[in-house]
Amino acid sequence: MISERFEATYEIESPVGLTRAAEVIAGEQSTGTFIRLASETDDLRARAAARVEAIEIVSRSTTPALPCRLQSATYERGIVRLSWPVANIGPSLPNLMATIAGNLFELAEISAIRLIDLTLPDSFAAAFPGPAHGITGTRDLMGVPSGPMIGTIIKPSIGLNVDDTVKLVTTLADAGVDFIKDDELQSDGPGNPLEERAKGAMDVLNRHADKAGRKVMYAFNITGEIDEMAHRAEMLERLGATCAMVSLNWIGLSGLRFLRERTRLPIHGHRNGWGLMSRSPDIGMTYKVQQAIWRLAGADHLHVNGLANKFTETDEVVMTSARAVQSELPGTRHRALPVFSSGQTIRQIGQSMAFLGNADFLYCAGGGIMSHPQGPGAGVTSLRQAADAAQAGQPLEHYAKDHDELAAALETFG
Amino acid sequence: MISERFEATYEIESPVGLTRAAEVIAGEQSTGTFIRLASETDDLRARAAARVEAIEIVSRSTTPALPCRLQSATYERGIVRLSWPVANIGPSLPNLMATIAGNLFELAEISAIRLIDLTLPDSFAAAFPGPAHGITGTRDLMGVPSGPMIGTIIKPSIGLNVDDTVKLVTTLADAGVDFIKDDELQSDGPGNPLEERAKGAMDVLNRHADKAGRKVMYAFNITGEIDEMAHRAEMLERLGATCAMVSLNWIGLSGLRFLRERTRLPIHGHRNGWGLMSRSPDIGMTYKVQQAIWRLAGADHLHVNGLANKFTETDEVVMTSARAVQSELPGTRHRALPVFSSGQTIRQIGQSMAFLGNADFLYCAGGGIMSHPQGPGAGVTSLRQAADAAQAGQPLEHYAKDHDELAAALETFG
Repeated sequence: MISERFEATYEIESPVGLTRAAEVIAGEQSTGTFIRLASETDDLRARAAARVEAIEIVSRSTTPALPCRLQSATYERGIVRLSWPVANIGPSLPNLMATIAGNLFELAEISAIRLIDLTLPDSFAAAFPGPAHGITGTRDLMGVPSGPMIGTIIKPSIGLNVDDTVKLVTTLADAGVDFIKDDELQSDGPGNPLEERAKGAMDVLNRHADKAGRKVMYAFNITGEIDEMAHRAEMLERLGATCAMVSLNWIGLSGLRFLRERTRLPIHGHRNGWGLMSRSPDIGMTYKVQQAIWRLAGADHLHVNGLANKFTETDEVVMTSARAVQSELPGTRHRALPVFSSGQTIRQIGQSMAFLGNADFLYCAGGGIMSHPQGPGAGVTSLRQAADAAQAGQPLEHYAKDHDELAAALETFG
Repeated sequence: MISERFEATYEIESPVGLTRAAEVIAGEQSTGTFIRLASETDDLRARAAARVEAIEIVSRSTTPALPCRLQSATYERGIVRLSWPVANIGPSLPNLMATIAGNLFELAEISAIRLIDLTLPDSFAAAFPGPAHGITGTRDLMGVPSGPMIGTIIKPSIGLNVDDTVKLVTTLADAGVDFIKDDELQSDGPGNPLEERAKGAMDVLNRHADKAGRKVMYAFNITGEIDEMAHRAEMLERLGATCAMVSLNWIGLSGLRFLRERTRLPIHGHRNGWGLMSRSPDIGMTYKVQQAIWRLAGADHLHVNGLANKFTETDEVVMTSARAVQSELPGTRHRALPVFSSGQTIRQIGQSMAFLGNADFLYCAGGGIMSHPQGPGAGVTSLRQAADAAQAGQPLEHYAKDHDELAAALETFG
């Protein structure tokens, strides 16, 4: 492994030209310093320097995309691919990030930079656990062998107490959902303590499972400090819960990996804050890169937004993200489960299946279930009917003729 | 505490007007969902909803700063201040971030958003440990009661083996530095294993301390998984080391807090990746906010770039960051130590003192020490002379007449 290299690809814009900019990045992110030192020998460079593998100029402009200390008459923009020896860092995700996503974002030789792709040697990837459950393990735990997994989010996001939440869980279980999750805003607030909530909810869901023969998966938001997360995961396991949710950006890569080692629960990865990393065309990274890192560290489920969402990502970006999450990742045994959410109703579920070419996803609808005119049970049924319609290759309006819940949903979510 | 509120201030641009945009953020980040549910009662809203505290329109434009699903003829830009009940989350930094820096970055009602300020109730801040050492504790451990602390970074960033590093440490200790740090690219690479490096370096530094009467502080880069960091910190304590460095963005807030609880070593916080969060004027956050979060979680030293750096931050931003790091933070006993680095020489040290009005900072020079024509010892001496000149209110050129090392440095770092 040590003789192998990992590669990162960037879209960059530069006031000094792409060739020079690529060299500066390679230097800054490996053997370089601002004055070349005698100790930066040729031998050392051959062994440890990052290498510019490819440069492709795509466009030129006369103004910089981002504020930049260096000025120029022309700013070259294009794709740059760099490689590093694995031996520089060894198999460590936090240190990989320091290398491929560290100081380089601040360089004066760059007026725009996005990390768009990452290639790791199989042996590097194999050093990480990857998802413990992924798609197949999640299906097994839920008892949903085929079709989209239908889920929902405890809403309002915040403000419900434990009793309110448990009542809602009862309603949702009776409605036939496969999955429930806490909102990312509610973890262990004083008005809705996690342990009480989990006890109340799992009491309902364990009893429901005894009757139904399968257990609704509830992703409890255990986001917190390391010791808190360890205790909470243990508590959830004791209660018979089958999933733990975390805010990935705030517990950090090391926090995620810790959890992967500490609990046998599937890890539901919430990406809140992702907009900061991704929304600008001029700085940030793609989800293709981010989700690979999170999967290697052990995330089983990863949010990807949804088609026609209330946010700002385009459908193309959403589907690229979902495909990336489902893709094979070298070294890991399981593909991860994409989670669609944000304004999802019967309108987008068939399209999501069509785009992906499969139904291996978790489809979270909030209002799409709770606001169905015939009640939440009909809301869930209407979503399954919409998926069945897609499976049968029939338009929703046609399929709705024999399916009342879908017909009512079509009226409500127009 | 539970009845108190925390406030976050944003610079935003919106296709739907600032007033509407502020309401959407408040809803999304507290009680709202995309269809108002019956369970979102007035009582619940009164108890848990985020509140728009202030709106100030600053400018209007006809094009959006960032790609945005919603379009408009006019995009309003300005400052919005929101508040949340502490009771929504309880005292938790990862969950605070999910609230103030979560999904809101992705909203279609916003075409630019930066988190620029944060106000926490004293009682909230008091729930966190803050820096264990800060400025005064670091001075005590280094034995540097006054003046700027002079440090350097092991360079080349990557590629030196343990023997190379230990030789360099010997040179630097003999040169009289107060502080040495690993580069953020070198943690525990197979070509330079941390434990061997630490043993070698601390053997040199412990012996040096026996003679010199004070111990050079070495910030070993222990960035890694939770268990790795715990073992490494213990190993460093056993060896008599006095500092541990981490890449804050990649170990995460939970990782940082873990370390604060687990070790008595000062935590040297490296912010690599910060450019991604800060460089765009249209998305991200200010260091005023980020450094407060990291300090509450326990960082003692925080990087702030440097005046006239090789990166792209302006001097004004650098000094605003350094002042923020030095500022009092409610609930914490210690002010944190700003770390200047990136192309620093004798040219910027006096100016840094003048801007801050004090010398309570760590000044890291790489080439500025190693490339001094009379050797590293003269390099360190020249930096102290430059600080003395500033203290005496004398121009460098004047002070250099009686100080050879400074005179030589002025020639080299012109």
